[in-house]
Amino acid sequence: MSAFTSGKKKNTKPCVMYLLRRGDPTMFETFWRGPIGESATLVIPGYQTMSYFSDVGNLCWFLEPGFEREVRRLHSLVGNAAVEGYHVLVGTGSSQLFQAALYALALPIADAPVSVVSTTPFYSMYPPLTDFLNSGLYRWAGDANAFDGNDYIEVICSPNNPDGSIREAVLKSKSGKDIHDLAYYWPQYTPITHMLAHDIMLFTVSKCTGHAGTRIGWALVKDKEVAQKMSKFMEQSTIGVSKDAQLRAAKVLGAVTDGYEHQLAAAAGGDANLLFHYARRKMAHRWCALRAAVAASGIFSLPNEVAGFCTFTKDTVTSNPAFAWLRCEKQEVEDLESFLRENKIITRSGTKFGADQKVVRISMVDTDEAFGIFVNRLATIK
Amino acid sequence: MSAFTSGKKKNTKPCVMYLLRRGDPTMFETFWRGPIGESATLVIPGYQTMSYFSDVGNLCWFLEPGFEREVRRLHSLVGNAAVEGYHVLVGTGSSQLFQAALYALALPIADAPVSVVSTTPFYSMYPPLTDFLNSGLYRWAGDANAFDGNDYIEVICSPNNPDGSIREAVLKSKSGKDIHDLAYYWPQYTPITHMLAHDIMLFTVSKCTGHAGTRIGWALVKDKEVAQKMSKFMEQSTIGVSKDAQLRAAKVLGAVTDGYEHQLAAAAGGDANLLFHYARRKMAHRWCALRAAVAASGIFSLPNEVAGFCTFTKDTVTSNPAFAWLRCEKQEVEDLESFLRENKIITRSGTKFGADQKVVRISMVDTDEAFGIFVNRLATIK
Repeated sequence: MSAFTSGKKKNTKPCVMYLLRRGDPTMFETFWRGPIGESATLVIPGYQTMSYFSDVGNLCWFLEPGFEREVRRLHSLVGNAAVEGYHVLVGTGSSQLFQAALYALALPIADAPVSVVSTTPFYSMYPPLTDFLNSGLYRWAGDANAFDGNDYIEVICSPNNPDGSIREAVLKSKSGKDIHDLAYYWPQYTPITHMLAHDIMLFTVSKCTGHAGTRIGWALVKDKEVAQKMSKFMEQSTIGVSKDAQLRAAKVLGAVTDGYEHQLAAAAGGDANLLFHYARRKMAHRWCALRAAVAASGIFSLPNEVAGFCTFTKDTVTSNPAFAWLRCEKQEVEDLESFLRENKIITRSGTKFGADQKVVRISMVDTDEAFGIFVNRLATIK
Repeated sequence: MSAFTSGKKKNTKPCVMYLLRRGDPTMFETFWRGPIGESATLVIPGYQTMSYFSDVGNLCWFLEPGFEREVRRLHSLVGNAAVEGYHVLVGTGSSQLFQAALYALALPIADAPVSVVSTTPFYSMYPPLTDFLNSGLYRWAGDANAFDGNDYIEVICSPNNPDGSIREAVLKSKSGKDIHDLAYYWPQYTPITHMLAHDIMLFTVSKCTGHAGTRIGWALVKDKEVAQKMSKFMEQSTIGVSKDAQLRAAKVLGAVTDGYEHQLAAAAGGDANLLFHYARRKMAHRWCALRAAVAASGIFSLPNEVAGFCTFTKDTVTSNPAFAWLRCEKQEVEDLESFLRENKIITRSGTKFGADQKVVRISMVDTDEAFGIFVNRLATIK
């Protein structure tokens, strides 16, 4: 059964747990209902955004200039990724940009499809995104550590979905190519320790601000030819990317940056207008609650807490991954996903991520209500 | 060179002709700047549309209920396609739905990719949309009339892009499948003669209302299993479709239907709130002007004018295709696209549509300014 069609029903408590199977970032909604919400309101008159074209002089001709501007402003504020000298591309979520990167990096005239690999545990969507059309250009080849060869595309997700680990490429061949999926490299999830400057870096509004339904991601790409090919992918696949969605994303990203700039100007306290501070505080509370529940239960374990100096917030902080990678230490439990389902906690099995059955992934970014029910149930499992 | 990256520059007269190479439906902008525009304005607060999910009980879980409602209302108003008993699916433009239909109709376990065919001249994007990922599921096989075999997917575009002809399937095997691309089956382009009820019918906001930049298309699908597979394609490819874009499309489609309902209620005259009447009048003027220019020049020809009784407007009208399929009758001109480019008219060659070099496709839905320059230049070519 699909991860997205699990029969979840709204407003019925036993089923609210289904939400934790997906990383639906509804946690952020409370922030956007706060004082900053007003400035993020989008108004589009009936006659706007009618043309296919956004910026005909740009190699990504469907990229709204206002969206590109806000992407550059936000990275400059946070310092998590270099933008100087990079091409900005927009995609219908970062899933589309991931496929665009495969398309751009694969050799169209090769005898065999290029192998796509990632270190286990890897994001469960990478294999189907690579293979669902049975493309002759690329083929999923599993764990990067088990790969033997020189030609490959290695996907590095850091912080990693599902386990939150900080990662670097494990393969080092000159003819190999890397895609860096940095969806979670934002201050609410992890200390920002470096301004990254990889060849292809993918981001998404979903995980940055919580606007998953807008379906907007972006890529920072160093090489012009690769950027052109990626843009070509979006052109073929969907004749570009919705302008309305881009305007929405620009509004939301702009509100985040404005929140910090205005706060500095006003020297005011509180974090109601500071997305990353607000969200980091909430995430840290949730991780405390989860670790307490795990300790109370006594049969589970989590990855060790990791701390570092955050160059954005200028303090030493622990990481608060968007997912909990929960392992069961009880010998009799062989299939943790099933075991938790019996306890009305719906998660995604480690097998989907190239790992074993004794581990599951759980969303840490769902609503307060869903998260509260989850930790309470977890604490009582013996 | 890509059809979308032709180096077109804004506001420079010699280059304005580049627009006619694409079917960018900017003609409609004047309508949306009129009295109806106000009611089509979209407002989205910062906290809305955050979740991935739109309607968890629907097989197309990312379909906004308000968008589905407006799709059904509009078809009920126009009478061009059956909606009763059909599943509505949303896509990032109808290009994505076309690929979703190929994915749903192909057999994943087949030895060889299924052949995708369409009668010549066919829409120039069908071959690259089918083949750009070198899929093992389906493969472009050209002209339907030249196809020999029982297993195929036939694409029927009616009215046809590029030549405006009304089409039916030419292949009749029991194991063959059809996709009906009805992007242009709206009253501004052609008389609505039947309420169509094919298995898979594709539509797009671009050609219906002119909102190409919103990137929203929809499919009406009879079979539940096919609809599920098509929905699965959008899930894999882009994790659904932008909610903001769907809300925009819903607003625009709703304004069109409201325009007719309010007009009837007020018994008012004029067509400023009646999209199809307004657009049909403009299209008819343009076709008159084009036929006059062709006659003045003396070296070109166009498909014959076709008329029929329109069940929507309840009168007999001629068709006004969104593209002119212009043929050159002058013996010395072998490559019409190049010949017209020398005359500063940028078009798309017949070769892109599976036809010959002596014919080109020209957009009839561009701005008044671009269209005016075009017909004036055309009339003077001898």
